[in-house]
Amino acid sequence: MQFGHFDDEAREYVITTPHTPYPWINYLGSQEFFGLVSHTAGGYCFYRDAKMRRLTRYRYNNIPVDDGGRYFSINDGGDVWSPSYRPYKKDLDRFETRHGMGYSRITGERGGLEASVLFFVPVDVNAEIHQVTLTNTSDAPKSVDLFSFIEFCLWNAEDDQTNYQRNLSIGEVEVEDGAIFHTTEYRERRNHYAVYGVNAPIAGFDTDRDAYLGYGNRFDEAVVPHSGASTNSVASGWYPIASHHLKADLAPGESTQYTFVLGYLENAEDDKWEAPGVVNKAAAKELLARFASNEQTDAEFARLGEYWANLLGSYTVSSTDSKLDRMVNIWNQYQCMVTYNMSRSASYFETGMGRGMGFRDSSQDLLGFVHLVPERARERIIDIASTQFEDGSAYHQYQPLTKRGNHALGSGFNDDPLWLILGVAAYIKETGDFAILDEMVPFDNDESKAASLMEHLKRSFDHPLEKAGPHGLPLIGRADWNDCLNLNCFSTTPGESFQTTGNKTGGVAESVFIAGMFCAIGPDYAALARRRGDEAEAQRAEKAVADMRQAVTDHGWDGEWFLRAYDYYGNKVGTHETKDGQIWIEPQGYCVMGGIGLEDGKAVAALDSVRERLNTPHGIVLLNPAYTEYHVELGEVTSYPPGYKENAGIFCHNNPWVIIAETIVGRAENAWEYYKQIAPAYREEISEVHRTEPYVYAQMIAGKDAERHGEAKNSWLTGTASWNFVTVSQYLLGVRADYDGLVVDPCIGAEVGEFTVRRQIRGAEYVITVTNSGGKGAALTVDGESIDGSVVPYAAPGSTVHVTATV
Amino acid sequence: MQFGHFDDEAREYVITTPHTPYPWINYLGSQEFFGLVSHTAGGYCFYRDAKMRRLTRYRYNNIPVDDGGRYFSINDGGDVWSPSYRPYKKDLDRFETRHGMGYSRITGERGGLEASVLFFVPVDVNAEIHQVTLTNTSDAPKSVDLFSFIEFCLWNAEDDQTNYQRNLSIGEVEVEDGAIFHTTEYRERRNHYAVYGVNAPIAGFDTDRDAYLGYGNRFDEAVVPHSGASTNSVASGWYPIASHHLKADLAPGESTQYTFVLGYLENAEDDKWEAPGVVNKAAAKELLARFASNEQTDAEFARLGEYWANLLGSYTVSSTDSKLDRMVNIWNQYQCMVTYNMSRSASYFETGMGRGMGFRDSSQDLLGFVHLVPERARERIIDIASTQFEDGSAYHQYQPLTKRGNHALGSGFNDDPLWLILGVAAYIKETGDFAILDEMVPFDNDESKAASLMEHLKRSFDHPLEKAGPHGLPLIGRADWNDCLNLNCFSTTPGESFQTTGNKTGGVAESVFIAGMFCAIGPDYAALARRRGDEAEAQRAEKAVADMRQAVTDHGWDGEWFLRAYDYYGNKVGTHETKDGQIWIEPQGYCVMGGIGLEDGKAVAALDSVRERLNTPHGIVLLNPAYTEYHVELGEVTSYPPGYKENAGIFCHNNPWVIIAETIVGRAENAWEYYKQIAPAYREEISEVHRTEPYVYAQMIAGKDAERHGEAKNSWLTGTASWNFVTVSQYLLGVRADYDGLVVDPCIGAEVGEFTVRRQIRGAEYVITVTNSGGKGAALTVDGESIDGSVVPYAAPGSTVHVTATV
Repeated sequence: MQFGHFDDEAREYVITTPHTPYPWINYLGSQEFFGLVSHTAGGYCFYRDAKMRRLTRYRYNNIPVDDGGRYFSINDGGDVWSPSYRPYKKDLDRFETRHGMGYSRITGERGGLEASVLFFVPVDVNAEIHQVTLTNTSDAPKSVDLFSFIEFCLWNAEDDQTNYQRNLSIGEVEVEDGAIFHTTEYRERRNHYAVYGVNAPIAGFDTDRDAYLGYGNRFDEAVVPHSGASTNSVASGWYPIASHHLKADLAPGESTQYTFVLGYLENAEDDKWEAPGVVNKAAAKELLARFASNEQTDAEFARLGEYWANLLGSYTVSSTDSKLDRMVNIWNQYQCMVTYNMSRSASYFETGMGRGMGFRDSSQDLLGFVHLVPERARERIIDIASTQFEDGSAYHQYQPLTKRGNHALGSGFNDDPLWLILGVAAYIKETGDFAILDEMVPFDNDESKAASLMEHLKRSFDHPLEKAGPHGLPLIGRADWNDCLNLNCFSTTPGESFQTTGNKTGGVAESVFIAGMFCAIGPDYAALARRRGDEAEAQRAEKAVADMRQAVTDHGWDGEWFLRAYDYYGNKVGTHETKDGQIWIEPQGYCVMGGIGLEDGKAVAALDSVRERLNTPHGIVLLNPAYTEYHVELGEVTSYPPGYKENAGIFCHNNPWVIIAETIVGRAENAWEYYKQIAPAYREEISEVHRTEPYVYAQMIAGKDAERHGEAKNSWLTGTASWNFVTVSQYLLGVRADYDGLVVDPCIGAEVGEFTVRRQIRGAEYVITVTNSGGKGAALTVDGESIDGSVVPYAAPGSTVHVTATV
Repeated sequence: MQFGHFDDEAREYVITTPHTPYPWINYLGSQEFFGLVSHTAGGYCFYRDAKMRRLTRYRYNNIPVDDGGRYFSINDGGDVWSPSYRPYKKDLDRFETRHGMGYSRITGERGGLEASVLFFVPVDVNAEIHQVTLTNTSDAPKSVDLFSFIEFCLWNAEDDQTNYQRNLSIGEVEVEDGAIFHTTEYRERRNHYAVYGVNAPIAGFDTDRDAYLGYGNRFDEAVVPHSGASTNSVASGWYPIASHHLKADLAPGESTQYTFVLGYLENAEDDKWEAPGVVNKAAAKELLARFASNEQTDAEFARLGEYWANLLGSYTVSSTDSKLDRMVNIWNQYQCMVTYNMSRSASYFETGMGRGMGFRDSSQDLLGFVHLVPERARERIIDIASTQFEDGSAYHQYQPLTKRGNHALGSGFNDDPLWLILGVAAYIKETGDFAILDEMVPFDNDESKAASLMEHLKRSFDHPLEKAGPHGLPLIGRADWNDCLNLNCFSTTPGESFQTTGNKTGGVAESVFIAGMFCAIGPDYAALARRRGDEAEAQRAEKAVADMRQAVTDHGWDGEWFLRAYDYYGNKVGTHETKDGQIWIEPQGYCVMGGIGLEDGKAVAALDSVRERLNTPHGIVLLNPAYTEYHVELGEVTSYPPGYKENAGIFCHNNPWVIIAETIVGRAENAWEYYKQIAPAYREEISEVHRTEPYVYAQMIAGKDAERHGEAKNSWLTGTASWNFVTVSQYLLGVRADYDGLVVDPCIGAEVGEFTVRRQIRGAEYVITVTNSGGKGAALTVDGESIDGSVVPYAAPGSTVHVTATV
């Protein structure tokens, strides 16, 4: 069942009913100010940090789901409703939400009145814009009352949920010329405030929640819109809100338009007050002036469109499969940009209060946006590497505001170092900027301990060699990519986090997955060393990789698939010898990516085992059989009910590794089938099962052992975005940057018969026309000339290169 | 305006409308299992720890206020409503909530059907009982569908608000014989589960929230009660709930009754499962069997009544002022027991996730319940003293489950040590148990560092002497009683807690308030030393007190009142020399209690200044004039808007110190007037202004500088309860325990002309009949004989002593 459709030309998803199976959201903002907005106008916005600078309140885990947001209420002759359906839930003659690139437009029509609200955050502006258009679609004049509503939060979202002894006493506002200023806590150590204004005269306002809603009322019972008049309330403690009242007289067919601005402002410490107790509002007035006319607003909206059109031009495909095209050209890249902006902080599943920037997450996210914003990727690499320790290990997370490592979580996730090499290699392949390797980068944010980025990579490379176990495989530490496989830090204390409990020493827990990563990523380190003229280091690295491949062959093979790990006691994990958890997905994908078993049949055998034991129509599960009993020595993984999360759920993040592995062994049909299983556009028709947005990936889908097999959770903020984009763009469509040229090596199902990829890189454009019959090993021509191999050399900036590939 | 009335005979407050100005709640439970229940059935319950063992979900700061709780829905021929009014908000023909001692009974009647729900936690049972009675009050037969509803929480309430990546995947239940078992996380390191059962056959059940409510619906839109049929849903992840469906056929006038049991159970680690994946439910079945018949439930309810009748017999008054009687005999003592049970953890203002047991809080709370449960007071004293450090300082808070000090908050609140002396002295006066002073008590919970409790008191006594400043006054540390006067740990970092930021060293910030405390409490230390035969120590202590009185006289007097403090820079706080914050309440009360200025007129002058500058009809404000500008060097206090909280709000906790001081100087009318200003029963008629419950104290009332002057916040969990009980029982009514006898020294307004206090102490009963004409200095007779002074010697256990006092 569908609840909307794609509008590819407009780069929008169009939701045509409020009754989606879950709130379907979008993100506003591209620089420092961001908003989350659902298809019924739920959500919140913040400046930089969703915990410390949240402007509006949002209640997770609420009844009803997704209550609260930016609500525009209409009183049309006593009939009170909202174009966003919620909160009134009045039937609409027409409902439509268009989620586009950095904006959403919600339109409702009822009783001969159309109301449309465009939400966006302009480029480089710290404000949400709510442009409201009212149109009288009836044949009689109308006098309409319009009420805005947002609920201010106290700006530390965690405190907002816990400290009522303080928070109910501090709320303060000012109202001036129809603009509502939220000034809570401004008097003390803060120098920021919020404003909610509108570019039209107001008939009244409210800033006290109880005055607007009526004490004890639900959103849909709000007394002010029902009475048709604001009370001009001034909040004193309790719950400051902002609501404007506007009156519109509309002839038949007539439209009117208002621009509401919800902004964040800062003042200098010595310029906080314009009079004792009166906030200096000059910055806010300047902001409001930028949106004084609706034409100014339109111009800012056009500028946002240009920003996104420009971004999305780096990689496009044109094929006969519109689902493929919309994933590649629009939504997968868009999601990659959102993960760049948000990391794992604020979504409808992540509260914005918890996780910082992950070393591992950020390094992988980078793979998905390096071609879009290479200069920002460079900055991100330096930030990440700065949280590395001298021994090559790294803080697992760092704080976005301070860019300092998170001591509470610490280090000891032994896959972390290798991801840095992968990210840096991707950046250099994209840009040719080898100079980044000479950048001096601190360890542990300590400038006195700075070393070249290349030295950082060396320590990353050496880390799994130095932390190797009895089988010559890398020690796993607290966990590797699988956060819930905690082989050294399981705990029997209820409620204690597995990941942060003490990391046991003297253990022998080894990760076959990290070994696979080492073999896949190590060659890039060797290549970088060679290109810097350090042939000895390159050969040392290549020998280490070869040794690791041998160690996996000798000690990481279970007979039909790769083992997952050895536990703290030296027992195998992921073996046919145990009842549950016999085969795990991660090493099957990454060991093949690491070139292990390509010659002796292990690679194909492992992938056949995946197909036989792990694959489902909804994606490839993480392990099989699901654990039905609790095994504390494995850590968190077995704490989940069968089929959910790491206990045999479908992790959309690691499916791509299997897909890439299938392209490596040349099985185009398998790869293509696996891709389509989890790609959201292909799941649109089963939205009632999938539940989360059909335009972006979710982190996970319930596995075959779960009651709710096929149901997705945790959409938007997941490394799934970047890995699937890498997979489809670089391996299925087969166009990937390398050091000296663009590799063109498609391996995609025969049903995608012909397609054209346009790739802008290093200032040139490549137009690659592929004639595909499935399989692998394309014959290439470049500007009409046949070439050997699969590498199209980089052309001079400004040139356009025409490539044909025939598979 | 009133929203109900007191029923003193039943010891109940009767709320007669759902439309109170705030949720008016009650507490269930007396041992380890507790519930909070509002007059419209909102709230939640927990076992011991409201953060780690919360059974049901509750949303603070919600729209609508107080949505969610234990809801019973009735479908009477298609008319769906609830006796608790919420969530349906259907008009009721009759509504009544009776909050009693450890129970609440909510009754609603509509369309000829009466539904009444009795909520209580039986003594020594880890369960909430919901006894539902349906009565057909119409003259026609009725077929009624009844649906229960509670929403399970994941038992770590903080995680429940933040970790959706995990929590939405782990929900599990079992249903067996009509009982619903919540088993989420049981599979892993927990061995506890919850059950919700009923003693009658069910027609169906639901355990999945979306199935019960319908996805996206509000509580009042729940599809199951509206459809009249359960769906027998079994939750798998997302939101486990419990709902039963019962069918009742009722002839005119007929009643039926059901007992629902919501319980907490634990199993031994090696006895968790009755079959693979099936929880061992033996303990739950045993619990349900205790409530298999409604007669069993009635018997348990009767037992609860006896428990409270017994508790409240220790101190009673009978006067012509029913408000005075109900405060003293019922509600103030009840609130003291609640503060004993809850400390500051779980109320409608405290989320149950944050604050542990306070060293200072608990020591003062003890003053209010030591006469009710002396054996528990003894245990509490040992717990508190065990968190003291060897230098006399103390952890400011400790964890209730582990009884260990809270490292995050640490120590350095320099009033803390003295409160321990006050609590121990109160305990010994009540019980005569001097042996407690010989108990070996650890420092910092380290048994190897144990010393006698008397040694702990010595270190408490010496602490302010050793930590004295340049004026010979005690250093204040992070803060004294006033949490927001942070003279050594103010911070300019936005969002950083004043209380926990680094405690600056080398400062000279001194507290006149702690000096007053020392002078008031020090004599008790001297008395204890003397009674143990250590005359030298007694004299040393008395000299130190005398010296401190002199230091206050020399350096703590501003001319018309006592100074509050010296700040970090040595500047005076609470002086006429500054624009704002000229006079503070705390030292005025406590210095007089400490005997300072009684002879030279300073005491009366200070109290006159309080009356002139701080008193209002709603109570005495904390300081005046309110600070209108931010002073970082004073800490948090000036961060509040004028009139709120510590910035010139009315703190009901410190008003009693002024009242006691007024009795010390013999001004009965002032004392009595101040008492009535804040005592909730006297504010019942202005409930629309006061807003919180008229039967218990709130922590604070907005002061005269606030927009909402007279509005209370933070009801229930406040040291206000114990201090007001101490004040009214020991100083106004004037009956207080001393080491050798009962002091009878009333000082109460003349309008309370005659009254009788009955006091049970040390096994004897004292019947004290007072004839009062205001003023002070009663003439006493004991069993008909005149005695000198005010001390009635303790009589032999079992005896009844008749005392008359004439003022």
